[in-house]
This record gives sequence, structure tokens and C-alpha cells, in this order.
Amino acid sequence: MSHNSFGHLFRVTTWGESHGPAIGCVVDGVPPRIPLSEPDIQVYLDKRRPGTSRFVTQRREPDAVEILSGTLNGLTTGTPISLLIKNEDARSKDYEAIKDLFRPGHADYTYQAKYGIRDYRGGGRSSARETACRVAAGAIARKVLGRNIRIRGALIRLGRREIDRSRWDWRAVDKNPFFCPDATAAKGWESYLDGVRKKGSSVGAVIEIVAEGVPAGLGAPIYGKLDGDLAAALMGINAVKGVEIGAGMAAALLTGEENADEMRMRRGKVTFLSNNAGGILGGISTGQDIVCRFAVKPTSSILTPRRTVTAKGRNAMISTKGRHDPCVGIRAVPIGEAMVACVLADHLLRHRAQMG
Amino acid sequence: MSHNSFGHLFRVTTWGESHGPAIGCVVDGVPPRIPLSEPDIQVYLDKRRPGTSRFVTQRREPDAVEILSGTLNGLTTGTPISLLIKNEDARSKDYEAIKDLFRPGHADYTYQAKYGIRDYRGGGRSSARETACRVAAGAIARKVLGRNIRIRGALIRLGRREIDRSRWDWRAVDKNPFFCPDATAAKGWESYLDGVRKKGSSVGAVIEIVAEGVPAGLGAPIYGKLDGDLAAALMGINAVKGVEIGAGMAAALLTGEENADEMRMRRGKVTFLSNNAGGILGGISTGQDIVCRFAVKPTSSILTPRRTVTAKGRNAMISTKGRHDPCVGIRAVPIGEAMVACVLADHLLRHRAQMG
Amino acid sequence: MSHNSFGHLFRVTTWGESHGPAIGCVVDGVPPRIPLSEPDIQVYLDKRRPGTSRFVTQRREPDAVEILSGTLNGLTTGTPISLLIKNEDARSKDYEAIKDLFRPGHADYTYQAKYGIRDYRGGGRSSARETACRVAAGAIARKVLGRNIRIRGALIRLGRREIDRSRWDWRAVDKNPFFCPDATAAKGWESYLDGVRKKGSSVGAVIEIVAEGVPAGLGAPIYGKLDGDLAAALMGINAVKGVEIGAGMAAALLTGEENADEMRMRRGKVTFLSNNAGGILGGISTGQDIVCRFAVKPTSSILTPRRTVTAKGRNAMISTKGRHDPCVGIRAVPIGEAMVACVLADHLLRHRAQMG
Amino acid sequence: MSHNSFGHLFRVTTWGESHGPAIGCVVDGVPPRIPLSEPDIQVYLDKRRPGTSRFVTQRREPDAVEILSGTLNGLTTGTPISLLIKNEDARSKDYEAIKDLFRPGHADYTYQAKYGIRDYRGGGRSSARETACRVAAGAIARKVLGRNIRIRGALIRLGRREIDRSRWDWRAVDKNPFFCPDATAAKGWESYLDGVRKKGSSVGAVIEIVAEGVPAGLGAPIYGKLDGDLAAALMGINAVKGVEIGAGMAAALLTGEENADEMRMRRGKVTFLSNNAGGILGGISTGQDIVCRFAVKPTSSILTPRRTVTAKGRNAMISTKGRHDPCVGIRAVPIGEAMVACVLADHLLRHRAQMG
Repeated sequence: MSHNSFGHLFRVTTWGESHGPAIGCVVDGVPPRIPLSEPDIQVYLDKRRPGTSRFVTQRREPDAVEILSGTLNGLTTGTPISLLIKNEDARSKDYEAIKDLFRPGHADYTYQAKYGIRDYRGGGRSSARETACRVAAGAIARKVLGRNIRIRGALIRLGRREIDRSRWDWRAVDKNPFFCPDATAAKGWESYLDGVRKKGSSVGAVIEIVAEGVPAGLGAPIYGKLDGDLAAALMGINAVKGVEIGAGMAAALLTGEENADEMRMRRGKVTFLSNNAGGILGGISTGQDIVCRFAVKPTSSILTPRRTVTAKGRNAMISTKGRHDPCVGIRAVPIGEAMVACVLADHLLRHRAQMG
Repeated sequence: MSHNSFGHLFRVTTWGESHGPAIGCVVDGVPPRIPLSEPDIQVYLDKRRPGTSRFVTQRREPDAVEILSGTLNGLTTGTPISLLIKNEDARSKDYEAIKDLFRPGHADYTYQAKYGIRDYRGGGRSSARETACRVAAGAIARKVLGRNIRIRGALIRLGRREIDRSRWDWRAVDKNPFFCPDATAAKGWESYLDGVRKKGSSVGAVIEIVAEGVPAGLGAPIYGKLDGDLAAALMGINAVKGVEIGAGMAAALLTGEENADEMRMRRGKVTFLSNNAGGILGGISTGQDIVCRFAVKPTSSILTPRRTVTAKGRNAMISTKGRHDPCVGIRAVPIGEAMVACVLADHLLRHRAQMG
Repeated sequence: MSHNSFGHLFRVTTWGESHGPAIGCVVDGVPPRIPLSEPDIQVYLDKRRPGTSRFVTQRREPDAVEILSGTLNGLTTGTPISLLIKNEDARSKDYEAIKDLFRPGHADYTYQAKYGIRDYRGGGRSSARETACRVAAGAIARKVLGRNIRIRGALIRLGRREIDRSRWDWRAVDKNPFFCPDATAAKGWESYLDGVRKKGSSVGAVIEIVAEGVPAGLGAPIYGKLDGDLAAALMGINAVKGVEIGAGMAAALLTGEENADEMRMRRGKVTFLSNNAGGILGGISTGQDIVCRFAVKPTSSILTPRRTVTAKGRNAMISTKGRHDPCVGIRAVPIGEAMVACVLADHLLRHRAQMG
Repeated sequence: MSHNSFGHLFRVTTWGESHGPAIGCVVDGVPPRIPLSEPDIQVYLDKRRPGTSRFVTQRREPDAVEILSGTLNGLTTGTPISLLIKNEDARSKDYEAIKDLFRPGHADYTYQAKYGIRDYRGGGRSSARETACRVAAGAIARKVLGRNIRIRGALIRLGRREIDRSRWDWRAVDKNPFFCPDATAAKGWESYLDGVRKKGSSVGAVIEIVAEGVPAGLGAPIYGKLDGDLAAALMGINAVKGVEIGAGMAAALLTGEENADEMRMRRGKVTFLSNNAGGILGGISTGQDIVCRFAVKPTSSILTPRRTVTAKGRNAMISTKGRHDPCVGIRAVPIGEAMVACVLADHLLRHRAQMG
């Protein structure tokens, strides 16, 4: 029941603070004899890495991962895999000024209220820096899932701008700084986000993750439902305030007729004529694409002064300087993919345990 | 890691099928010497009970709960509390006709795909009947939380109709068959839902749950975040497709300035000037109201014929007769309250463990 | 992390007090489509049942088990199996006299110290009556393990008397009231235990459990070792004070040469020339017989007066009347078998999860 | 349910192989604002460290611990504490010769049977080197328990030699290379173990751990019993084959009268006149000293040739050279202390959660 672990059979424990010497994670339960080396993980970390465009934080972190255990000659051994990522560009001095101020929208106040102590340097444990470990674990999860399962994410809304789904093209995602699947929309987003950034403001985002190739049968009802676990995994990402599966919140507006994903036999296989369920019924995968979305609130660290209080209980104003993402939702794309990968890997092992 | 248990320190294990002899649950970890008798639980079960209006299923179940263990002279003893509810009005014959048909939108197909066997009578384990156990556990959770924490829910959308939040009145909730906080809206909903019901159709709904009096500090980051656990608990309710905390999916549309819940000292206490966070920052409660919402899809059992396939892989049509809720979202209100209560009780104990 | 659950993938949750209306358990994680009916379980309950000879408690309990969920037409469905056993012969009045006295060697004092309340009737939750649920769960575990794995137990010591291992005969075990594998020894034990019983005294015992047919590879090092889990399962049985695997405590007296279980190829298979390891190395099964032993202390409820204190803190004497086993170790044989079966079933599923 | 984690609220996850770049652990659930720095941990690691006398392995490891997270200015913050210990003196070449041979008594064969791959260098994950992490975690556990709880261990048997309990003196423990509480016995042990060592043989040992100052009430019956958890924790230490609480296996020889720990009021406090229970009744601490013992088998790596088989299934002989402890039981003393400390810390938090 560790507070800093998730998953059951594919189990990830993360540790580390934004400005400590390093962050890392331990991934346990990985089947043996899977090829695994640092580059398999690095490629995903590089997607999440800060400093890749002017639309994300300018903190310069190579985010180079080291595998400290659990492999032999490039193969997993079935023992826990320990990953380490050094923190190289922490500037703790930037945080001295706000050491005793609670940044609205941040975890500053709640960590203080809970623990009576908080690592104020870069947000400490509550920093989005921790998500690098999720991405690293996700890379291992993909290995466990194998090549037939493909997990991809995209930014479908940037503040008040959203994509035109008819223009969805997965190939566009890697060709713009937003992971946007609509190349046309992405172009407009550059100037839009530049405007936000220059004003010292920030915006939210919506990310969609799609997992293809997931076989029917994954999920452990009633309290280990696949959608329940996905919801926890995605809501637990920093700054997320909403999670949807399939039709999501809009399911409430449908009638039973509209919502029913009708079924037909096609070449001897069960097929569905629509996917309002997002690939999950009764907490178990249907064999369709798993489709989930989550909303990320705007970055709380903004230049515009906001009213707050001090640790000693005095009213104050705060304006957060430093190196911040104008939209934290962008880098949430690889994080969301990783969380979905981890949940699916866990459920693959759980399913195998009970079903053989 | 039981598939049918949830919570860690306040831990609930449920069992039972829709048409078996009984359903029940075991609630473990309850602190000792708390007054607890059947009526404390029955009052909540009665809210969820079928047959209370023409807008819910007409199955006649008294849902009378029996406490089989864990109390002595009306006080909890710290040992597991076993609750039993007999199934009295199961009509398994109603299901013979659809024994080999997969109802679209139901778990029929996925249970068969996963287990290679399924209890087709009334949906078996995947039936919403299981949620009676959640409500019973929730009643015990409220006892653990004490009187200072108040958890209430309301239906804020019924299909295409939604409430006017300016007319929100908690007292209205118990005075209409929809748990609707807007008395004016509720009136119109009767004829609206009658129309849906008579057409043999169904609609979805959105439920909002508010927990007042929750102290700052509950939640166990990073992977036992209060919002992550709430998301899992609510997404795991039958037919739920979306979950929101505070501003929810709409957080994506806000700017950093709009989203920041500014803080001021008021009579020596930290107060927030808004609650976009829904009472949770960094996975830890802020001391504000915890506000969450979830969307329930329309009842999948509808009279209108839909295309489906048989267990043997043939195309077929299905029209689901029997006694069904035209909107399962209505009875989800007490269920949502119960799940929030259980999550909070678990986190209260978790917090106490680490903080003393 | 439920206090009253054990196992991870094959997971058992028990509930109930000695003098409540019933006791029971929920067994979760059982693979689907395994034949299971009440008689499969009853046969093991009958071995543990009170009142079967003059050497066990005379409480008359049929211990008839009811399956309330998780099966359909005599097959498991993969959903939780709820078992219920009614308490029929509780005589709570027998316990009025010792309501405020702490019986030495019993859990009376510690339950009071922990919970500030205790169900004094028949020992409440701490009664050995709870072990009926373990035996019932063990019967299901055997089904999960299949016929190739055979788990048997025997009493190898009764107080100061022990068996002659050269006379070990498994067929003898069911032919005497002690589960003793040495028919000659068992004869002498009758008068020995009659003497103990008539004096109002009691004696301890040592039980040995052997699991044959367990494949090499079960066990999840480092903290889910097969021997570690067996130790917890056996030490957790009421009144157990010691647990041994293979050579056990005597391993300390061996030299490295004596202790090494040498290996040879025999008909193309790896074989071991001895079994000091008790079938487990590095926490993983070797493919040899799993051999474990545990010591049960003498029944604490004795007629001989003992010094004690009252709940109000006064010195007192106590002499425990009522219906007690002169040696609780006897009925611990089927309980020990059941616990070993449950641990093995859990590890079989865990192994399958990681190894496929 | 991680295979490489233990504890629930005070939770330890370890990772690393004997000859990898490092070993380490993550300790989660530690209450905040506890003073903690490297020297607090190092003092215990130095007790377990190899190379401290001729009676333990001559591998030269400084075992210097680094705290990578979870503290701020020498105080714990409530977030996970990551500890790292570099491997500095691994000589993997020593193991080339036995790469394809299974050492009897070792985990070589079982790891291969389970995983189909094994890190043969120094025993890989199954090496006793992993126990350094347990000792490090134990040092933190002691901090959580506070100064009123004192946990000490001693070697009470070395092969065929045992101590005279009447000469027990805790002060002697740190003054001989055996952690022996009987100074007179310890003297004789030097030449005895020299003889064993020079013959290329090894011997087993029995260790006793005593925890003083533990309040009554710790332990979570039925399946989180304090003795059950201690048994798992101690049996899970490398090479342990038996675990005893209080009277242990000898409890079987006692009568009910002898075994009953009678109670009297002394200066207004409940006291016990003996401690056959080892401080635990019904799985809950009594307030007496917690007393447990465990037997360690002789080191399996011996010079004397033994029969074995190769990975390819051929008969062979093996003689294990390299740097090995003639009695691994000696260094098990600080490890046993650490495991007891971790179990108690976990139960202290569990107790606090339910009892407030």
C-alpha cells in the first residue's frame, strides 16, 4: 500500500524531488528475458524532456537514464529494475523568494498542511519532474505489452483552441511542438501560445490516448476495473482535473439507442459498429481501441500577480518567475501514454494469473 | 490486490450476483467503539433501493441489511464487519431469452471473453445490484468520518436537461424522484423521463458529489492521491464514463489567472476565493469542499431493437425487456456519495497512520 | 492491506466471531470453470469439525458450508466465492463468569488493550472457530492447484510423546483420532491424552505438512518468498509458536557438507539426494516435496486455577470451564494443510502472472 | 503486491544484484520531521559490513550509504527515502567457473528453473548482499519507533556450541566477533570456528532478537498478526530455516499450566510472571519483551567438493572457492534486528491508523 507505488503485478515505485541529487524508480514484476537497454527508455524520456521547444520549460536536463539492476547482458532477469536520472540543472535559488509563500494552484499549501514541512525547491516531490519516472516505467511497460499493442497520445485541445477531428493524422503528431494530430490547427497554435507565454499567462489542454491491439478480456472487475485503474492513473498526473473513457462526460447526453455500440460478425470475428464505450465494458476490454482523454489545468506558475498568504499567515501577492511551461499539457502527452502503458501491462499480468 | 476489494485501511470486499441467494460485503479496518446498527446502514440503502418511483427499476427488493459480525452491543469491535442482503425478487426466467445474446453496452460480451463463462441471470456479477454493497459500506464510512464531514450528492443533468446552478437548493434533493437540487428543473424532468420511458429508450446523467468539512491534509501523494483514488472509485461505478474534480474537463479552457484559487486570511484562517481545484491540490485536500462529478451513460437495456451477435457467433437482433431503470444515473447518486465516503474514510486512516 | 485477508492473487478474507450468527469468508481470484460444490469443501471441514472424538471440544457444530456466490451450475465463474457457516451451538452463558477476567495465554488481554472492547463470548474473533474458514478456503485452493499437487499433514508430537519416523505411514493418519502417522505411537497417545484431559490440563503438539508434486519455480523473491509466506501462514494459526522448513531449527547444528542437498541427474531429470531445504531454496520451490512443521502451544483454557487480573485491574484466580480441546494441536492438522494449500495456490497464480 | 517490497505503511522496496553497479532501497511512509542523516544509517551498516573479522567474508565493501531523496535539512519530509549503496569490490571473474554449475544449497538452480535466466555473478539478486538494504531500512524504522523501543540481537548458538543463558550479558555482544552475549562461550567459539574455516567447511547458527518497550496493542489480527509478520520477515532472510516466538518449538512440550503466563498487578500495572508467549498473544503485543529466534543454515559455499549437475544436465562435482563467511549466521544478527524493527514500525503505523 505504498503511497509512491502503483500497479500490482507490474509495479512501479518512484522517488525523488525536483532539486535533489536525482530522481528514480523501481519497476518490479517484469517478466524475464525481455530485451531492455537504456536507449529503449531514453527515446520516450526525450519526448517528455524539458527544453525541446520555446513552449516548454527552459530547464536544461539531459534526463539520461541509467539502469542499475534487473538486467543481464541486455535481458531482463525477473528481478526489480532500478532506474536513475540525475538532476543536473536545478536552480534552487530561484525558489528562495517564494519559500514562505503558497503559490495558488500549487501543492505548496497542502504539503505544508499535511506534513508540516515541505521541500520548496522547485516544488520538491510535487514537481512535474517526477513524471520522468513514469515515462521511463512506461517504456518498460511497452516492452511487456509487446509490439501488437500500440499506445499513442495527442493534444486535442490547447486552451480555447481545439482540433478538427476530421483532420486527425497520427503522422502529424511528431511534426509540431504540441503533439497535435491536426497539422493545420498546430500552425495556429504557435502564435496563440506565444501570445499566452509573452503575457506571462498559461493555458490548459486536453490529451487523448489511444491503445490499439489490446485483446478482449483485460480488466479485473469489480474493483480492479480497467477503466477504474486508467482513471486513477490519469487523474494522478500532475494538474489533471478530468478523465474520460470513450464518450466520456458527453455520454450523459446520449440516448440508449445512440450509445449502444452495436455488434456484427465480420469475417468470423465479433466487431463493433461504434466505440462509445472507449473499448471497455463492465471494466473489461472489448478488443476495440481503448480511448481515454484527460484535461490538464493551466500551469499555476504565472507571472501575473495573484493574491496569496504566507506560511506565517499573512496576506501577500505572488508572481512566479523562473522557467515554466506556458502549457504543462503539452508534455503530458508522453506521460499519459506511459500511464496507460503501465496500467495495461499490469492488467495483462493480472489477467494471465487468473486465466493462465 | 483482491479484484473485489477497495480501499487500504478502510477496506471493503464485496461479493454476490444479481440472482444468487444474496449479496454482501466485508468491511475491514473500522476503528472500534463506534455505534453501529442496521438502521444506520438501512437509511442509505433505502435511498438506492429499486422500486421507489416509476423512474427506477420495478424489481421489488427490500434490501434489508443484516450485520453478521464485527459489533458487540451496538458498537464496532475493530474486527471485520460482514453485511448480508438477501436477493428476494430475482426473476431469472426473464433472462433465458437472452442467455446466448450479448446485450450491446453491457458486460455480457466482455465477461464471456474474459472468463469463458458468465452468469447471464440479471447480469450476474456485473449487475448494478452489486452497488447496494457500496452504499452499505458507505454508511459505515460516514460513521468513521464523523459528523463534521458531510457528503451529499445531486443529479445535475438528466440526458439533455440540466439544472440551473443558481437555483441549487440541497433541501430540494430529497423532494423529487431525481435527487435534483433544482426544484424547478425537476418538475420538467418528470414528463421528459416519462417520454423516454414510454419510448422504451433511456438517457444518461451527470451526478455531483460534495464533501464538506474535510480537513486539509488528506491524500497520499504521489500514487495515493485523493483525486486519483476518487477518480478510480467513481469511474468504477457501473456505467460511468467520465469523472471530474473541481473545474474538471473545463479546466482546459481556463487561463492560469482564471484557474488560480487565490488565498486570503479570514479571521485567522486560510481561505480560498474560488474552488476550481475542487478542494484538492497536489493530491491532498485543501480544506475546501471536495467537489467531484461523474457522467453515467444511458441504461443499455432498452426495448428498441439493436444489432448484436450470439455466443455462437451469429448476427442477431436484441430488444431487452424486463424491469429496467430509464436512467440508471438517478440511483447512482447515493452510490456516488458512498464511494466518496469510503475513499475519504480510507484516507483519514492513512493520514492518521503517517501523521499520528 | 486488509487485516483479515491473506494471499494476493488467490485471496481469502475471513470474518465472524465464535458466538455471532455465523462465520464466513470470501475467496477471490479463483480461476473460472473449475468444478466446485459444497461437498468439495465439506469433506475438509468435517476433518476439523469439533465433537468428532473425546479428544477435541464437545461443542456440537455441523459446520455446514453454504456457497453464496461465484459459481454457476457447479462451476466457478471467476467472481468472488462467498462461503457461510452458521454458528449453531454457541453457549455464551458459559462465558459470563469470565467476562471481566483475562485468561492467561489467551488473547483476552491483548484485544482489550488494543481495541478497548472485546467480544468475550467464546473468544470472539480470536477463537479457533475462525479457522473453519481457513479450511474451507483451503479446499478451494486445492481445486486451483489441481490433482498433481497433494498436501497432507500429520501430528508428529503430542506433548512429550513423539512419533518414530521409521514407522511413518500416511494411511495410518485417518485411522486414529490424532492424525498420527505412526499407528503404534497413536495407541499410546489415547491413554496419555486421557490422563491430561482428566487432570483438566492440556498439552502442545507439532504438526508436519508435506506438499508433493509442487513444480520447481514457485516463490517470488525477495519479499514474497515461498518459505516466508508459509511461515506467516503457519505462524498465524492460533496458538502456533514456531515454524520450520526442511531441517528447521536443527539446520543450525549441521555443517555445510551435511546440509548441502546434493544433485544428480536421474533418467534425464534433476534430482536431489536429500531434502534439508524442505523443497525451497532462495525462496523458490525446487521441485522436491515442500516440508514444513509448526508447534502448537497447549490449550490455554484449563481447569487448573491460574493467577490473573480483572479488567478493572485487580488480582484474581481463574479456572476455565467449558468445552475445550485438551490439545488444540490435533485439529490444527487440517488447518495447517489448508494454509499450505492457500499459499501454494497464491504462488501458482503469481508465478503464472510473471512467467506466462 | 510487489515481490521486492515488504511492509504496508512503513514500506521498503529493495533492488540490486551482488555484482551490479549498486544496491539500494526506497523506504516509503515514514512520518515527516524525523531527524535523519547518513550516519544514523551507517552505524548499523557497519555492524553487518563484510571484512570486519576473519570470521566473515573478506570482500571489501565500505557499504557507504547515500540518501537521495525524502529529507530536507536533515529532517524527513514524508516523501519516499531513496538509499543507494555502491558495489565496489565485486570480482565477477571468481564466478566464471561456476557459471553453469548449480551450487547445492544455493538459489542457483531455482532461479534458473523459475526465470530461465540468472545473474550468476556473486549470486546476483539471491546474494546476501541484498540484506544491506534491510539493515539500512531498519535504521530508519528505529527512528520511527523512537527511543523507548529498543531492539537488540545476539548469536545464541554457533553450530554445535550454544550459550549458557545464565551468563547472558548484552554488553558482551559488541565485544566479540560473534555478537555473542556469553563472553565465556565466545572465547571458545574463536578456535571452534577457525577449525571450521580451515577445513573449508561451515556451520549454522541461532539468533535471538529481543524488542523492549513495545507497547501492548500492536498487531492486526487475524492475517496481519504481529507474530505472523515477524515469522515472514525472519524466514525471508537468506538461509533461515526456522523461526520461533517465545517458547517456540518447545512450546509443544509444555502443559497448559506451565505455558500460561500468569498475570498480577504490580504498582498499578498489569505484569506477567513469565514470557512463554514471547510478548505476543492472539497476534497482538502484550507489552512484554518481544522475543524471537531464527535458525540460519550453514553457508552453502564450501570448499569440500559436492555432487551437483550442470545447467546442461550433466553430473559434476563442485567446490566453491571465493570469499565466503564460514558462518553466515553471524552477520544475520544486525539483519534480524533490522527486520524486527521494520515489522514493528509498520505495525506502529497500522495501529495508529485504526486506533487514532
